[in-house]
Amino acid sequence: MTKIIVPGFRFAGVAGGIKKNGKPDVALLVADESVPAAGVFTQNRVRAAPVILSERRVAAGRLRGVVVNSGNANACTGERGEADADEMTRILGRSVGAGPEELVVASTGVIGVPLPMDRVRSGIDSAAAALSPTGFTTFADAILTTDKGPKVSVARAGDAIVAGCAKGAGMIAPQMATTLAFVVTDAQVDPAWLQETLLAAAGATFNSAIVDGDTSTNDTLLVFASGRAGRVGDDRLKGALFDVLGNLADMLVRDGEGATKLVRVRVTGARTDGDAQLVARRIATSPLVKTALHGADPNWGRIMCAVGNAGVDIDPRRIDLDLGPVAVVRGGAAVVLPSVEEIEAAAHQVMREPSYEVRVALGLGSGSALVTTCDLTHEYITINASYRS
Amino acid sequence: MTKIIVPGFRFAGVAGGIKKNGKPDVALLVADESVPAAGVFTQNRVRAAPVILSERRVAAGRLRGVVVNSGNANACTGERGEADADEMTRILGRSVGAGPEELVVASTGVIGVPLPMDRVRSGIDSAAAALSPTGFTTFADAILTTDKGPKVSVARAGDAIVAGCAKGAGMIAPQMATTLAFVVTDAQVDPAWLQETLLAAAGATFNSAIVDGDTSTNDTLLVFASGRAGRVGDDRLKGALFDVLGNLADMLVRDGEGATKLVRVRVTGARTDGDAQLVARRIATSPLVKTALHGADPNWGRIMCAVGNAGVDIDPRRIDLDLGPVAVVRGGAAVVLPSVEEIEAAAHQVMREPSYEVRVALGLGSGSALVTTCDLTHEYITINASYRS
Repeated sequence: MTKIIVPGFRFAGVAGGIKKNGKPDVALLVADESVPAAGVFTQNRVRAAPVILSERRVAAGRLRGVVVNSGNANACTGERGEADADEMTRILGRSVGAGPEELVVASTGVIGVPLPMDRVRSGIDSAAAALSPTGFTTFADAILTTDKGPKVSVARAGDAIVAGCAKGAGMIAPQMATTLAFVVTDAQVDPAWLQETLLAAAGATFNSAIVDGDTSTNDTLLVFASGRAGRVGDDRLKGALFDVLGNLADMLVRDGEGATKLVRVRVTGARTDGDAQLVARRIATSPLVKTALHGADPNWGRIMCAVGNAGVDIDPRRIDLDLGPVAVVRGGAAVVLPSVEEIEAAAHQVMREPSYEVRVALGLGSGSALVTTCDLTHEYITINASYRS
Repeated sequence: MTKIIVPGFRFAGVAGGIKKNGKPDVALLVADESVPAAGVFTQNRVRAAPVILSERRVAAGRLRGVVVNSGNANACTGERGEADADEMTRILGRSVGAGPEELVVASTGVIGVPLPMDRVRSGIDSAAAALSPTGFTTFADAILTTDKGPKVSVARAGDAIVAGCAKGAGMIAPQMATTLAFVVTDAQVDPAWLQETLLAAAGATFNSAIVDGDTSTNDTLLVFASGRAGRVGDDRLKGALFDVLGNLADMLVRDGEGATKLVRVRVTGARTDGDAQLVARRIATSPLVKTALHGADPNWGRIMCAVGNAGVDIDPRRIDLDLGPVAVVRGGAAVVLPSVEEIEAAAHQVMREPSYEVRVALGLGSGSALVTTCDLTHEYITINASYRS
């Protein structure tokens, strides 16, 4: 990959000793000046200290940068955790000449253990000394925990570039908390438009990607826009932002703990988009559906069962269900022609593919939703059931 | 076990050829006359034909009996399925001299395949010829699918007996649909009291038992009271009913697909019982929590994360969390004395037990809930990911 340079930004990633394995764990993203910024945060009611701090500060619509640490989530750490998060921004602020209110923080790692602040302090100082316009990939490396590798996506929007990176293997990695994602662009934007567009893009991408249905205490998505490339057209920039976030969300699911398949669940014909979303999410999180996806078992009764469990008012007699191109249910009843056996065999073939679509049509209205999920495998159990010590 | 005899009832179970393995698959429970009866059915919006029929008929408060088949759920089978369910009650009615409106039906097995009615008809006729006051255990055998063995529980209520049986290994067994449970007593009751008490008992037992969080299209719980033993006191009978259903629900969880542990999740201090129930269920269904239970991993951050994801308004700073006798969180923050390592080791010891309690105190009110769950294991994946053919 060629070097990713986004005019107006510098990046760094160093090993500060927070992780016991010596891998990079302190990352910095700093704009040359205060720039338009927007953020989306976890909807979990238990929120880590950095989430509480960052959500408040990004509300102003402009930021200088973010300090990220991996290896420790700074969650369930009480008042000490909140003081530590604030101090992280003060340390960075002194190095780069910014006020703490212009800086935010994101953390990922084990929950309930206080941050080793001596290592965090020296790590931030080392990283600040290493800040460079070509440091994007070192930043992307230092935010990882159990990911198989870095998740980076870049798109063009006219003369501007949109570069994003993310971490996460499962909505929560083992003992870890978090999806983190950071996007920078040199396009010129209005902060309010950026926040609104980011919310829409997150809804269609990250918030529709499901590994195990759990939302962590630390999930954070931030975007910064330096404006160096000038205005490139809102639609064009929005398209590039959706592309980058969509690619990163797919990478999260493909790297989902133990995942071997990426399956799109498309629900149409709901009374509202919200209803469709509830049905799609119920299908995408059902352990019985996800094990059937793993075994390529065309046991579509489990999908019908999940539809009925979504808490949405449906009419079972109007439901159509397709696995890829194979129609398996029409009007709520099994398709039995040419024969139950032939339909099952065709559906099994579809489900052996690494990626395909499950489509449910509810026949009640025009609400729709598209959710991306993965299968539930032995490897997921192995990763998550292992005792840490 | 001594023979279970409940005066006023006859039972039978035979192999009718619905299951391919030749095991018993047609079961009958018939009262000597029309008796008070009550039922609780699946809350899934996709309901199998027998559920639709039985819920309507039991509303009258009196029944003669039930015909059960295993091996085929008669779900997603359209109008043909509804006609088949009705015909099952007509066949039994002719044999025992009862009108079809006095009889109900329950089915469990594969979804989306029409019933083989020729075998069902001859099976019901054979079973009717075998009806006997000592047939309870043959009945309990014939309702099973992938269960490891029969699930039977008996309690005394004064001079009366309360006998129950259930089937189910997971809220849904592989490719199957259903929890079924049947209870008979010779106590004398008022039908309205029976329905009300059954609802309360089901809420505290079956509806608080979680294997994988899916509710099938066929779940059915029926109770019949012959009155032969006369009145025994409502509280005494209610106690016996709760005991029998509680035992059966525990048997379901212990026989949960792949389960190796039975864990009680107790939530207190919620604003309402409903809030407590939502928090307890979220913990009890989280794949990340359930894999941690399996690995005896005291990774309590996953439990805090589940609490925050329950969709209930909580104050994270008031949460206390205990694993068995070990306090791990106080006021939303990790307990760090005597040391993080000692607390983790003590919690790990608790989690190595086959059964223990996870307690969450929310500190907001007096709402509480108790839910029973199991761990998520490799065996669950093996059972559910296997392609059927």
